[in-house]
Amino acid sequence: MKKRNVDLVCDIAELISLAEEGGNRKELMQSVVTSVAKHMMADVCSVYIYDEEEKKLILRATQGLDRSAIGQVKLKLGEGITGRAIRELRPICVGTASKSSSYKFFPGIHEEEYEAFLAVPILRGLRRIGVLVVQAKETNYFTPNDVKALRAIAAQLATMIENVQLLSEARLEASAPAVASVKKPTTESIIRGRSASTGTARGRAFTLDSGQSESCLLPDPDAPPHTAADFEEAIKKTARQIDKLQVQTSEKLADVAVLIFSAHLLILEDKQFAGRIADLIQTDIPALKAISIVVNEYVEIFSKSKMPLIREKVLDVKDLGNRLIRNLLNEQADECDYRGQIIIAHELLPSDILKLSAENVEGFIVSSGVTSHNAIICRSLGIPMVAVSRELADGIPDGEELLMDAEQGIIYLRPSSEVYAKYRGLDEAWKALHNASDMEEQTVTKCGERVHIFANINLLSDLPPARRFKAEGVGLYRSEFPFIVRNDFPTEEEQFAIYKKLVDQMDGRRVTFRTLDIGGDKMLSYYSNVTEANPFLGMRAIRFSLQNKDIFCHQLRAFLRAGAGGGSRIMFPLISSVDDFVAARDIVYECMDELEREGVPFSRETELGVMMELPSAVEVADELAQEADFLSIGSNDLIQYMLAVDRTNEQVSKLYLAHHPAILRAINRIVSAGITHEKDVSICGDLSADPRMLPFLLGVGLRNFSIDMVNAPTVQRLVSGIKIEDAEEIANSLLDFGRISEIEAYLVDHSLVPETEA
Amino acid sequence: MKKRNVDLVCDIAELISLAEEGGNRKELMQSVVTSVAKHMMADVCSVYIYDEEEKKLILRATQGLDRSAIGQVKLKLGEGITGRAIRELRPICVGTASKSSSYKFFPGIHEEEYEAFLAVPILRGLRRIGVLVVQAKETNYFTPNDVKALRAIAAQLATMIENVQLLSEARLEASAPAVASVKKPTTESIIRGRSASTGTARGRAFTLDSGQSESCLLPDPDAPPHTAADFEEAIKKTARQIDKLQVQTSEKLADVAVLIFSAHLLILEDKQFAGRIADLIQTDIPALKAISIVVNEYVEIFSKSKMPLIREKVLDVKDLGNRLIRNLLNEQADECDYRGQIIIAHELLPSDILKLSAENVEGFIVSSGVTSHNAIICRSLGIPMVAVSRELADGIPDGEELLMDAEQGIIYLRPSSEVYAKYRGLDEAWKALHNASDMEEQTVTKCGERVHIFANINLLSDLPPARRFKAEGVGLYRSEFPFIVRNDFPTEEEQFAIYKKLVDQMDGRRVTFRTLDIGGDKMLSYYSNVTEANPFLGMRAIRFSLQNKDIFCHQLRAFLRAGAGGGSRIMFPLISSVDDFVAARDIVYECMDELEREGVPFSRETELGVMMELPSAVEVADELAQEADFLSIGSNDLIQYMLAVDRTNEQVSKLYLAHHPAILRAINRIVSAGITHEKDVSICGDLSADPRMLPFLLGVGLRNFSIDMVNAPTVQRLVSGIKIEDAEEIANSLLDFGRISEIEAYLVDHSLVPETEA
Repeated sequence: MKKRNVDLVCDIAELISLAEEGGNRKELMQSVVTSVAKHMMADVCSVYIYDEEEKKLILRATQGLDRSAIGQVKLKLGEGITGRAIRELRPICVGTASKSSSYKFFPGIHEEEYEAFLAVPILRGLRRIGVLVVQAKETNYFTPNDVKALRAIAAQLATMIENVQLLSEARLEASAPAVASVKKPTTESIIRGRSASTGTARGRAFTLDSGQSESCLLPDPDAPPHTAADFEEAIKKTARQIDKLQVQTSEKLADVAVLIFSAHLLILEDKQFAGRIADLIQTDIPALKAISIVVNEYVEIFSKSKMPLIREKVLDVKDLGNRLIRNLLNEQADECDYRGQIIIAHELLPSDILKLSAENVEGFIVSSGVTSHNAIICRSLGIPMVAVSRELADGIPDGEELLMDAEQGIIYLRPSSEVYAKYRGLDEAWKALHNASDMEEQTVTKCGERVHIFANINLLSDLPPARRFKAEGVGLYRSEFPFIVRNDFPTEEEQFAIYKKLVDQMDGRRVTFRTLDIGGDKMLSYYSNVTEANPFLGMRAIRFSLQNKDIFCHQLRAFLRAGAGGGSRIMFPLISSVDDFVAARDIVYECMDELEREGVPFSRETELGVMMELPSAVEVADELAQEADFLSIGSNDLIQYMLAVDRTNEQVSKLYLAHHPAILRAINRIVSAGITHEKDVSICGDLSADPRMLPFLLGVGLRNFSIDMVNAPTVQRLVSGIKIEDAEEIANSLLDFGRISEIEAYLVDHSLVPETEA
Repeated sequence: MKKRNVDLVCDIAELISLAEEGGNRKELMQSVVTSVAKHMMADVCSVYIYDEEEKKLILRATQGLDRSAIGQVKLKLGEGITGRAIRELRPICVGTASKSSSYKFFPGIHEEEYEAFLAVPILRGLRRIGVLVVQAKETNYFTPNDVKALRAIAAQLATMIENVQLLSEARLEASAPAVASVKKPTTESIIRGRSASTGTARGRAFTLDSGQSESCLLPDPDAPPHTAADFEEAIKKTARQIDKLQVQTSEKLADVAVLIFSAHLLILEDKQFAGRIADLIQTDIPALKAISIVVNEYVEIFSKSKMPLIREKVLDVKDLGNRLIRNLLNEQADECDYRGQIIIAHELLPSDILKLSAENVEGFIVSSGVTSHNAIICRSLGIPMVAVSRELADGIPDGEELLMDAEQGIIYLRPSSEVYAKYRGLDEAWKALHNASDMEEQTVTKCGERVHIFANINLLSDLPPARRFKAEGVGLYRSEFPFIVRNDFPTEEEQFAIYKKLVDQMDGRRVTFRTLDIGGDKMLSYYSNVTEANPFLGMRAIRFSLQNKDIFCHQLRAFLRAGAGGGSRIMFPLISSVDDFVAARDIVYECMDELEREGVPFSRETELGVMMELPSAVEVADELAQEADFLSIGSNDLIQYMLAVDRTNEQVSKLYLAHHPAILRAINRIVSAGITHEKDVSICGDLSADPRMLPFLLGVGLRNFSIDMVNAPTVQRLVSGIKIEDAEEIANSLLDFGRISEIEAYLVDHSLVPETEA
């Protein structure tokens, strides 16, 4: 028996017509294998379908093998020739199956008679659907042409199978209730995530997102049931605690914590909330269950709301529920917070972070992307945070003992005593490295050149450490936080109060205010409800300010008034052209004229600068340097836009590279423009404290670094070990390279940084 | 009576405590006005709340005026001093109200007694909440300090009002059923939208998204009811029509139309679909209503599906329903399509556009954003498309007579005969301007320099016009369309068949293939289900290909095989570094070696090029020019990334400017790099056919233009009027300007283009 001239066209036509005749899937598959076996003159043709749940291939139809094996023969990925084809996503053709190392013998289906074996994966894109297999008794029976023919058939088959599944699955989906995912305790003792803040946290896992699980709310079945009076008492106690928290945080975080617990209080005092729980208790529902029912009702209502402002209160309700329950269980009033707990949540708002920080949380594990403002606020508050996938987060059981290394993005479950000991050591080493008391007043290179270290400030609470770490001023005040953690735009007066404190506490040192940088991933929930397809390429930063002149003017007036004593500067983020800068500057001048007319003190000498973070700004760096009083390189956005890589996107984050030749050249162009026009240039963003890149930055002429102050001791120490001459040589070499790979090789060879710090 | 020392602190504290006491909103407001009047020593204090539905301010509480006016006095935006304050979003303070031009007298509430008038808007961001008004008998009673105090109170009030509304609105939302928006016939005769394709369409509005409205399905109440047999007949007729359509489009659009009607046929032959309709007819439900019920059931099921592939079939079901109904109503079989109709839809897929184009639709109005592949496919198919807001689209009544100018993005409702006449004239003028028969074989400047015009090709159906318009080759083949309009990745063979046709039909002229450019706004529904926050900064184009080597190799092999005869080139989109290009080139070399081993013909001489569209690529243009065989400037993405502006985002699209100095300089750098290394440089994207920029492009040295061929006559004519010497002077002048405004002024003064074409 010898086949030739497989009539491919005919095959496909027949297959398609089979699919279109309808009929059930089982019959259809059987018709397919019969047809394929006939046209390809093969002794056997079988279809295996991949079961995603079981992660196994299951025999679904066969012509030539024993049909009773259908549904019985199951193969793992990589098992047998068939399993290999699907694992490796490619056809496998074997001339003598019995001699193949992959061959897998199934007794009773008489497969051993067939030596020639050709398995072609049925794929939908890269999704595994199944495998189409033909077999023949004759060795070396199948030719490369047969492989092509079977691939073409498999491709058609994929479409056909999906089309048939389409209707039945849609119906199934519509009728099946949503299955709640069950938490399985993980057997892994380490979870790898992504660093979103620094530091180490130790504590027990606590999932904030989950509904109030009833089982864990009833720890002691023998305890007497809670009465309505107990509940009344718990409500009062809770109100007192929250009042106290509000007062404490308002004092500690005056710039952002205005009324952050107001929703808690509002719900607590809402008669329908407490009333409904009390009613349920009256009908003999246990108090804990009553709270859980009503909290879940509120969560349900809130999370379905169309208004973001209402949706945002979901965590508040949950938090309130937890607190009520703990108070009802009469846990220590002082301990009624998240001390000793690491909170796992899908999503957090900056205000949630503030609240939970006030409630002494140890750390956060989040399973959605981390927005830059969340990362920044966690760092400012010194709370470790790690981002992991939803699946991994769901795998951490509540109450599990955790040690979290936020720097590395590693979470240890049930850590051993060795791990604890290791981290105690690391913590001490870290403290020694970041010890402010070792710092010199001034930062100077090895050859005696002065370098200036300024502080990045997010919250007013960053100011005491900034002073401790000898900041020469504020290089970047991110003014958006008082805007983000609120329900409304702050008034000019409210802003003035914050900015004035900043200036006063810096005690005559230079303060650089950046105007509002919202949009991108920093949204104001109370402002915009437009969803942008690419917010980083949308209405953000100076674009927003120029579009909303009222809001812009309030901020500018507050800046100008706070800087009345002189020495403060204003810079505009996301400037794309000289025209942008001039438009912004004109509005500053208007505000100055207005203040003058009103007789309000301010300084006419306030310097106005440009954040250099867009490629188009780099291209007109010369003109911008001429026009502006100073330039400041915003390295994070500059890298993002130059390379078109959203670094918060896991899929491409490895393409986000500071040491790309284009980035180095862009920085050099900006600094050169500043030098040419004798304008001050500084750099802020993560690059400014990157030990690996420090020699380059000094080499191109940068002397002003605005950094997170915790890095100040390291930066000062590294600077003091560098000679400008050497740095210039390094910079010149790096600027010559046109490839990333060349730069990487050079940096490895010329690292000035000890291994442990790089 | 004279007030001083308004105790602001006390006021605010009191207001907040009022809010936290709970209580209903009406009482609360009354307490507020009483308190404010007392503290500010005003004779009157009132709160007006803005009603978004009515677009009116309504008096909600007052101290001092007649309380019976509460709920009665209503003001439009801008009406009276109060209405002006809310319209202009600023406080208005008037010393003598009776003399103010804005003053509005309401009889009976005794307002006329009060001369001093201070109105402060209550705002939530820019959202209008209401107005807080104080009045006093004494003229010029309120001072600037009072204005400040009242602003502070209004800000607190905004938060308070919202907090109280929060709970009640959330409850209301949860209990209220979703209200279907009622279509109101618009009184406007012109709607302005955004151009998404070119051309003019005339026809009646037909909303595809709406459910099957029963009323419009029963045109003749006297007609005999349809029987089950009539329905059977309609099913058969529909199946025949769709079969025929499938065959026709498969012939006409072989590259993309593979089985586009398969879901139609599948549903039509699904026994549960036809069976259920037949069952309903048996229970005496009128046939049209039965179809409508079952179609809506399917729409419901499909649109809720978690699988994008299933959700995508929603329009197919609707389309099928329309067709069945028209067949049942026994409309002319040949006319059973969308001839004479302009379809209004929220969202369209490329495959929907193909299908509806096969069904002879006149044009599209879409109310979601327009993805670039939809715009491109509409242009290739010659179908006018305009994007408008959801609100405007909903305002166009079904059956309305429309004339749509897709070029300008204008839709005329019930156009006058003058409008029709005007567009007949414009259409003729357009035809004359785009007349291929007037074209010369070669494009030459006034001074005799050769310029080459190549075609941008999206579909194989673009080839005949490309030849007619004398394209010297294909400058950009966008290979993604055969990938987009499918349910699966095309095999190497399928791709080869398409690419081979392209090469054959270009008859020896140069063909430049661009490798797959998906991601961004061009998604493959069958591939990725990852949602990116910023897809333009994510996994797209060459990043996708390098990540999915299998898919990349299939395409490269198909390109190489199709170009076996020589003269074809391959270019890679979104290259960000030399390293990227080298990685892609290495894979091409691997494919070449593989083909060689297999004895498959291909050309070793196939040139490999770089799409220059990322800022980082511009920065290393010199190294890229050295490494690659040619460069091609992708102007659309280059502008987008240089300026960080998503041009499909309405909010910022006016910032998307080709004549930004940074863009001009980047283009000059790329062309200079090409000239230095003696490599061919071309430009594709919209800029390449922009008459205003043509002199500049020639001036910096560009001679290869890849354009949508409909623009070829214009480009040829313009080129023939330009001397290179003049163009160079223009380019040098433009490159000197550092501001957009300077460039704009220069372009106005130096336009080489007659007004009508610019």
